[in-house]
Amino acid sequence: MSYIAPIKDMLFAIEHLAQLEQIAQIPGFEDAGLDTAQAVLEECAKFNQNVVAPLNWESDKNPSSWQDGAVTTSPGFKEAYRQFTEAGWQGLQHPTDFGGQGLPKVIGAACAEMAHSASMSFALCPMLTDGAIEALLTAGSDDLKAIYLEKLVSGEWTGTMNLTEPQAGSDLAAVRSRAQPQDDGSYKVFGTKIFITYGDHDLAENIVHLVLARVQGAPEGVKGISLFVVPKFLVNADGSLGARNDVECVSIEHKLGIKASPTAVLQFGDHGGATGYLVGEENRGLEYMFIMMNSARYAVGVQGIAVSERAYQKAVQYAKDRVQSRPVDGSIKASAAIIQHPDVRRMLMTMRATTEGCRALAIVAAAAYDAAHHHVDPAVRQQNTAIYEFLVPLVKGYSTESSIEVTSLGVQVHGGMGYIEETGAAQYFRDARILTIYEGTSAIQANDLVGRKTVRDGGQTAQNIATQIAQTEVDLQDSGTPAALAVAYNLQLARQAFTDAVEFIVAQAKSQPNAVYAGSVPYMMLAGNLVAGWQLARSLLVAQEQLAHGQDQAFMSAKIATAQFYAEHILVKTGSLRDSIVRGAGSVTALELDAF
Amino acid sequence: MSYIAPIKDMLFAIEHLAQLEQIAQIPGFEDAGLDTAQAVLEECAKFNQNVVAPLNWESDKNPSSWQDGAVTTSPGFKEAYRQFTEAGWQGLQHPTDFGGQGLPKVIGAACAEMAHSASMSFALCPMLTDGAIEALLTAGSDDLKAIYLEKLVSGEWTGTMNLTEPQAGSDLAAVRSRAQPQDDGSYKVFGTKIFITYGDHDLAENIVHLVLARVQGAPEGVKGISLFVVPKFLVNADGSLGARNDVECVSIEHKLGIKASPTAVLQFGDHGGATGYLVGEENRGLEYMFIMMNSARYAVGVQGIAVSERAYQKAVQYAKDRVQSRPVDGSIKASAAIIQHPDVRRMLMTMRATTEGCRALAIVAAAAYDAAHHHVDPAVRQQNTAIYEFLVPLVKGYSTESSIEVTSLGVQVHGGMGYIEETGAAQYFRDARILTIYEGTSAIQANDLVGRKTVRDGGQTAQNIATQIAQTEVDLQDSGTPAALAVAYNLQLARQAFTDAVEFIVAQAKSQPNAVYAGSVPYMMLAGNLVAGWQLARSLLVAQEQLAHGQDQAFMSAKIATAQFYAEHILVKTGSLRDSIVRGAGSVTALELDAF
Repeated sequence: MSYIAPIKDMLFAIEHLAQLEQIAQIPGFEDAGLDTAQAVLEECAKFNQNVVAPLNWESDKNPSSWQDGAVTTSPGFKEAYRQFTEAGWQGLQHPTDFGGQGLPKVIGAACAEMAHSASMSFALCPMLTDGAIEALLTAGSDDLKAIYLEKLVSGEWTGTMNLTEPQAGSDLAAVRSRAQPQDDGSYKVFGTKIFITYGDHDLAENIVHLVLARVQGAPEGVKGISLFVVPKFLVNADGSLGARNDVECVSIEHKLGIKASPTAVLQFGDHGGATGYLVGEENRGLEYMFIMMNSARYAVGVQGIAVSERAYQKAVQYAKDRVQSRPVDGSIKASAAIIQHPDVRRMLMTMRATTEGCRALAIVAAAAYDAAHHHVDPAVRQQNTAIYEFLVPLVKGYSTESSIEVTSLGVQVHGGMGYIEETGAAQYFRDARILTIYEGTSAIQANDLVGRKTVRDGGQTAQNIATQIAQTEVDLQDSGTPAALAVAYNLQLARQAFTDAVEFIVAQAKSQPNAVYAGSVPYMMLAGNLVAGWQLARSLLVAQEQLAHGQDQAFMSAKIATAQFYAEHILVKTGSLRDSIVRGAGSVTALELDAF
Repeated sequence: MSYIAPIKDMLFAIEHLAQLEQIAQIPGFEDAGLDTAQAVLEECAKFNQNVVAPLNWESDKNPSSWQDGAVTTSPGFKEAYRQFTEAGWQGLQHPTDFGGQGLPKVIGAACAEMAHSASMSFALCPMLTDGAIEALLTAGSDDLKAIYLEKLVSGEWTGTMNLTEPQAGSDLAAVRSRAQPQDDGSYKVFGTKIFITYGDHDLAENIVHLVLARVQGAPEGVKGISLFVVPKFLVNADGSLGARNDVECVSIEHKLGIKASPTAVLQFGDHGGATGYLVGEENRGLEYMFIMMNSARYAVGVQGIAVSERAYQKAVQYAKDRVQSRPVDGSIKASAAIIQHPDVRRMLMTMRATTEGCRALAIVAAAAYDAAHHHVDPAVRQQNTAIYEFLVPLVKGYSTESSIEVTSLGVQVHGGMGYIEETGAAQYFRDARILTIYEGTSAIQANDLVGRKTVRDGGQTAQNIATQIAQTEVDLQDSGTPAALAVAYNLQLARQAFTDAVEFIVAQAKSQPNAVYAGSVPYMMLAGNLVAGWQLARSLLVAQEQLAHGQDQAFMSAKIATAQFYAEHILVKTGSLRDSIVRGAGSVTALELDAF
């Protein structure tokens, strides 16, 4: 089998780090206990392992194609999507009111990881639908909800996000698409949108485009952007499909990776205007779009973990199979599997520890989301909202930046075979490369982390996290095992690096914005690295406890070894990041523009 | 123009860091002064900018193809190669006795960088020919030299290296190709070789394969491997081409990058045996192959610099052209070119500083090569041999690992456009990914650095380098400028990290080989980073001196800013590498094999 879902590691994080039993006490989540989590994850693993994963490499060789305005997806996608919707996977996290299963994000996140491990290209379609659902749930009128939500939650129709235009990428203030109000309350939408994931395809009978555009006379900049629903096919009063709307897929891109996922250029309104329906109020579109985007950003972080996991599994398999050279310690007197060689082990451990650390980070963030949205106590909701919002740019930024390194190591473990496309390791490397770019580049995540998440509250949330980490250090020291002490040592240094960076950023943000933003991505990497390492430190403590009770010796021992490796080889990088942020800001912008 | 050779930076390094005037005092190099260097570099730039660079992207779209045993190269390659040979570029560094120009490597390295910036895929062909020439010069009989060298030096024929077999990659002891002695002194060669760069092509009328094989009855392992010349076409006594030899190109690979460079599977001896000629003595093949390989390893390091430079130039261009968002410091009240944004600047500076640092490292290593091979004083030769051999794994390992990061940043600067193949940024990222693999993976370079270059002389060469670096620190402190002091501070910490690692490695190599080799690649990265940073520190001192004399203000100021950026953002990474090597060795191999 080309992919085996790491259910055990996921459940470990869900149970012990995210503390699912606490989430299951929240009204509405009563049935979402550990048994449910396990059952759902096992079903999800079966589907993704057996149905989706086998399509991944073939679909890279036979990418989606465009002809006469219509996209044909890769062989096998249509049938897999049919099975996906029939099993109800699209509705996993969505409200039961609209036919969903209403499970917490902490379970949904694990399922999403499996889906993206199986095939990023395939799983992007439901991922975008999730975003559309969230936007309509939050801001859509009852009418819009009634017409679209059930169809989206079932997966019968799919959703897209239409933000980018040729001149408006990271800068949405530059959006030029426009909308004219019509007498019947609808709008005519005009404009060109690019980089639209699954902007056209043949998996579902309708596509619900969520489109940013300016209503005539709206203010300049981001405060004049509205959000519209523009369906590919208009919907009749009885819910059946009507006429084809005036939106056309004029081409798809030839990309480095995720080739099976069609990335479309959409033309709205070339034949009189595309019929659109306002979501929420005029000029509040960006606010609503951020709902979709936050959901999507988190999901992209999960994609990073997913592709890392798959690259890791492939590399391990190769390293166990490939025989080459004698071990350097003379322990075997003949050529051995390359996993016996220390540097191969270092690469595999780096892949493994990074992936497990990012997974733990993401699952803990998901738990904060669940509490932030559903806890009965407003104070708990507020607290968790702050934590979740701080963690989203880390999940997105750190997991995806790391996934480039992890998938690159995956190629490296394969040696020359890694460079041959048929091997498959290169696909993960190519696929991963989009992740630091779409749904906000790493710089955009880092700006968000610096501005909205760190400076705005004067570093309070950051400091709260540091305080919790300090408590984990105490627990590690109390435990006193060599592994715990080694982790405590590195965790303490990393936390200090983090608080140094936070202090610098908070103190200088107003007076020296260039200096602060010069270190924004290093700060994001520092924070992500720290919080992932912290979760593995917590894992070590849990594993020691479990071992003391005789639980699952092999798994728990591995958890401890992985946590220690992370601390000694990955967490150690935080010190130099702090030094660059705090001492090196000036040299980032010192070179004259003419000298480039 | 898609590529402009950085002649000024190259000449700066050649003149001030490699001290060309000293090399020009070596007999045979009298004419290789600064004027010659400049003239050669300018001609070389013209050729590569105008003739080769425009082919790079087109040839990626139209890669070399295979049909019926023959490879057809990409459109334009044949004509470009004809111009390449007619201008005599193949013979640049080779002896005048065989029609070459006999220039020092320090000039040749700069020219090679231009060639690989223009097109890695194209320049690989002459690069492999260089290796074949070096092997024949060192170990070939007078007969072999007479038959092959002039044709290779002129580029009329090309060369290949045939090492790898399916079961023998990094481990050449596993080579199974065999050779049977014939009555006329020739051999019949049999076997399958894979990953043979330019193993077949249509650029030249003959291909000179250098092939590792075992003579019947040879010892097991690396001590039973011999080196053979196996020409594609046999050569008649009068030098004209005779019959087709029994070597067939049975396929070429479908690769992640360098797609225009054919990577062949060669089948030797399926029809009675390929006629081969022994190079040097039987069973000493690996020793000779290392001559080719050391030349090739250095050259691959230069490829890393080359592709980084080209990626940097493309990213700078895009960052100057692309307008998006207002500067965070409010200095411009409208959307600005993205080069105005601090994080874009950070990425470009990382690309620039890394590239300049690695270039300086490579050119200084080339000067050591020239002195090692040609200086009149045996003591100077010996000293430079030790330095050169220490530096080769750094040039290869550090420059190529860095090139993956640099080309990845190149994609990132382009945002979504970077992921679209037509943009071209992704090609550099794909091309670069081979560099840490072929001609010895990074682990192989690191093993060489640890075993043969560090442990064998008890850390003496490493210590000599550290002593020289300490002197540069003193010079920086004496200079006393803020930039010099900032660099001195970081250089001192990095040197300390290096000597800590060296001490650990030398002390533990015998008793704890797993622990030492677990840190081999981090050690290589530490050493490469340090020596590159050291060269930029020397550059800063030179630039300050030049500025004091009113020389070239813009260039020298940029050199200072770049050196400081390197120290504060790249050299700072050495501390965590030391910590991983010295304190983290145990956790690399702690996880049980079954747990993977």
